[in-house]
Amino acid sequence: MTVKTAIQPTRAENYPEWYLSVVKAADLAEHSSVRGCMVIKPWGYSIWENIQRVLDGQFKATGHQNAYFPLFIPLSYFQKEAEHVEGFAKECAVVTHHRLEMNKDGKLVPAGELEEPLIVRPTSEMIIGDSFSKWIESYRDLPLLINQWANIVRWEMRTRVFLRTAEFLWQEGHTAHATSQEAEQEVMKMLRLYSDFCQDYLAMPVICGEKTASERFPGAVATYSIEAMMQDRKALQAGTSHFLGQNFAKSCQIRYKSEQGSLEYAWTTSWGVTTRLIGGLIMTHSDDDGLVLPPRIASAHVVILPIIHDEQTRVQVMSFCDKLKQELSAVQFDGQPLRVILDQRDMRGGDKSWSWIKKGVPLRIEVGLREIEKGQISLLRRDRSHKERMQMSPAELNLRVDSILLEIQNHLLAKATEFQRRHTVRLDKKEELYDFFSSDEKGGFAMCHWNGEAATEQKIKDDLNATIRGIPLDAPHEQGRCILTGEPSSRRVIFAKSY
Amino acid sequence: MTVKTAIQPTRAENYPEWYLSVVKAADLAEHSSVRGCMVIKPWGYSIWENIQRVLDGQFKATGHQNAYFPLFIPLSYFQKEAEHVEGFAKECAVVTHHRLEMNKDGKLVPAGELEEPLIVRPTSEMIIGDSFSKWIESYRDLPLLINQWANIVRWEMRTRVFLRTAEFLWQEGHTAHATSQEAEQEVMKMLRLYSDFCQDYLAMPVICGEKTASERFPGAVATYSIEAMMQDRKALQAGTSHFLGQNFAKSCQIRYKSEQGSLEYAWTTSWGVTTRLIGGLIMTHSDDDGLVLPPRIASAHVVILPIIHDEQTRVQVMSFCDKLKQELSAVQFDGQPLRVILDQRDMRGGDKSWSWIKKGVPLRIEVGLREIEKGQISLLRRDRSHKERMQMSPAELNLRVDSILLEIQNHLLAKATEFQRRHTVRLDKKEELYDFFSSDEKGGFAMCHWNGEAATEQKIKDDLNATIRGIPLDAPHEQGRCILTGEPSSRRVIFAKSY
Repeated sequence: MTVKTAIQPTRAENYPEWYLSVVKAADLAEHSSVRGCMVIKPWGYSIWENIQRVLDGQFKATGHQNAYFPLFIPLSYFQKEAEHVEGFAKECAVVTHHRLEMNKDGKLVPAGELEEPLIVRPTSEMIIGDSFSKWIESYRDLPLLINQWANIVRWEMRTRVFLRTAEFLWQEGHTAHATSQEAEQEVMKMLRLYSDFCQDYLAMPVICGEKTASERFPGAVATYSIEAMMQDRKALQAGTSHFLGQNFAKSCQIRYKSEQGSLEYAWTTSWGVTTRLIGGLIMTHSDDDGLVLPPRIASAHVVILPIIHDEQTRVQVMSFCDKLKQELSAVQFDGQPLRVILDQRDMRGGDKSWSWIKKGVPLRIEVGLREIEKGQISLLRRDRSHKERMQMSPAELNLRVDSILLEIQNHLLAKATEFQRRHTVRLDKKEELYDFFSSDEKGGFAMCHWNGEAATEQKIKDDLNATIRGIPLDAPHEQGRCILTGEPSSRRVIFAKSY
Repeated sequence: MTVKTAIQPTRAENYPEWYLSVVKAADLAEHSSVRGCMVIKPWGYSIWENIQRVLDGQFKATGHQNAYFPLFIPLSYFQKEAEHVEGFAKECAVVTHHRLEMNKDGKLVPAGELEEPLIVRPTSEMIIGDSFSKWIESYRDLPLLINQWANIVRWEMRTRVFLRTAEFLWQEGHTAHATSQEAEQEVMKMLRLYSDFCQDYLAMPVICGEKTASERFPGAVATYSIEAMMQDRKALQAGTSHFLGQNFAKSCQIRYKSEQGSLEYAWTTSWGVTTRLIGGLIMTHSDDDGLVLPPRIASAHVVILPIIHDEQTRVQVMSFCDKLKQELSAVQFDGQPLRVILDQRDMRGGDKSWSWIKKGVPLRIEVGLREIEKGQISLLRRDRSHKERMQMSPAELNLRVDSILLEIQNHLLAKATEFQRRHTVRLDKKEELYDFFSSDEKGGFAMCHWNGEAATEQKIKDDLNATIRGIPLDAPHEQGRCILTGEPSSRRVIFAKSY
């Protein structure tokens, strides 16, 4: 029997197309007419606003301050760190002129060529480093803990809304410290903050790991990331935290006078998450009926759907719904007033209900004359079958709505965690690895021993299109042999296909 | 007697230099090494965050939703509205290449020339209009009420931090309506919202007026602005609201099917305020000792300054201050928990106190052993003499702190309102006008009759460097004669020098 689903194709039929259909059906975002850029529509942007609100609070609670730095980076700054410029050279939007003028054919063309081209920031280490070099004089100015919310441009040829676009939104933390140890602690602290955030708010379990040299941020000494598993069992890098050593301090001249009076280079870090998190959120929880939003990050927690059969009862139903909305909006969930929508649109009840299923609202409440007369309203959870109703009185709903939302939040996390666990395997034989990533039914995270060589990594990438997503921080040391070469290894790494 | 001031030069000595000194002493922002761009430092950025929080809440309360649109606008889009492109052509940053490559001399140069140059948004009418044309189909989709928080680039040759920079931050509202009347109501609603915000939060009185044709937004049918008076009696345009008629709807093809089934062009509006508001805030309230922040928008409301004379009493004083900070942080002011700083830095008490005076914190609290023993702490208000102390018990402070802050807020507004009133004059003779703007002691807002001709406006601009800031919305109609030509006029306009 084929079940009709709201989203076509289904995940099983065509996962990449399913993703785009979910984004469209939920009205989250769209590709812009400007090549490679996306438009984040109100429903998608409100998820980003919730992410911002929570993370911003956590950054501030851990001593960071927000600031804003220029969008443009002079080419010469960019070149100060050789690996850095090499890493980004292929994807830079370059500003070369500062006005437009009419040419003799009456065509508007760029004019006023700049003496030095400007790069639209693909990341801000060099421009923030320039400020840090002026702000920091003595050890008393350290640590310097700064965050910026900004737009970023990395020219991409193949784009995918939220996951890979020429322009995206992010936050970038940049910090400077007196010692290497302190900087490394910051790197770990922010990685764990991201990991906890993904788990607690996005209900998206992630694995903290160190990147191999080939996947390191250009110019970093060490790069750490959080990796989530999507429902197609591919990995999504959901955030990164970089230990920059003294590399950027040297190229930007970030120096401080120590307590002993000597002039020292600072130790710096940077870390960021982007609107890509929304892509991860979609692919972790959504189903063949559309978006599923974890309540703690949902654009709206509850939608009230009045059922109106005739004009006589309209006023009665509407005033009941208005009152219900007021009461629910006074309830607190996760330290915030409940976000409640009352859908007053004139359209078929079924279409109306489905529009909110596709938008992923955690709770739908249906109220008609029958419900009002019985004193029992119908409650439908997005994480359950769309036919499963709970009946309760408005008074009971007011008392229980926060715990029901928490239940949904926990349920989504448990489901995603179980999915990740089920598709994470320990493999020790090369044939197993090759089978794992060749079969359509298998795939996921393969925990394998690795000899630490880039050549091994490359060979597996070439053969299987799977890469080392990270060297997990929380896995025990364990003696074993490299899955490809048989050489000794003391730790397993995660191989996976990835976004 | 010369009074020593914390800011040199003083306002009287050199107003433009005084402004820069206040910005520097309060550590608000600085010019970046990137030509024309500023770095907004944490103390300055926190003011912007407060502005954003309040305005964003008000936009949402009036039915607007946030979204995000591309940074880049293809040149061809930009050209669709002739006046619009002409208005911005001289100040556009143009992206022409999408990567960097090493040339044969080993020099990194722009490569990958774009087929069509991209303009870094100087405003987003054309790119948002492109989306609106896709989002709007029927009258049911109207009104469409969208806001965007974003960075903007307008290439400026002569820059001035917060007031005029190549890149700045702003919000831009963009709305589409079914009727002209509805769009005009929106334009007025948002203008009044800005005006109320400036008055109620920034304690900066403004005058709402319509711009003359020469100062209209490129492509608009009508532009309205709020104009504030700075302490040098010059006007600052603090926000604008534009009625775009059907001009942009026609160039972007924003059409809707009416209830009657006909295809109609929508009526659109746009409105915005920028980080320039911070410049206005500084120049409205600050004095020769530095920044003065109205409490409702202040980065911090209260700073606690422990006075420690010896190591024996340090623990006692510090634990008292910690407790005081906790108690104060639990107090609500303007619907927000009080923002309290405990300054634990090891430095001379006088320097410490002056650093916060220069940063404009509304209330300073000094706590030493003597204060603890007496049970009376010292309270100093930023809007009073820096020597004027109030003594009260911590319990009394907790009870009264919110009303003291409100008193400061009201005092600053009253002072600024009185300043504006004192320097606003009604002039009817040409000689008076010429004298008003030629004398160093005079100047301000001159309310004069005007014949409605651009030539008259231009003549006065050429002669006096004063322009028509606006045709006030709230002034009564009044018969009179143009101050320059003697022709009949039915309304006074505001002449002023301006930023």
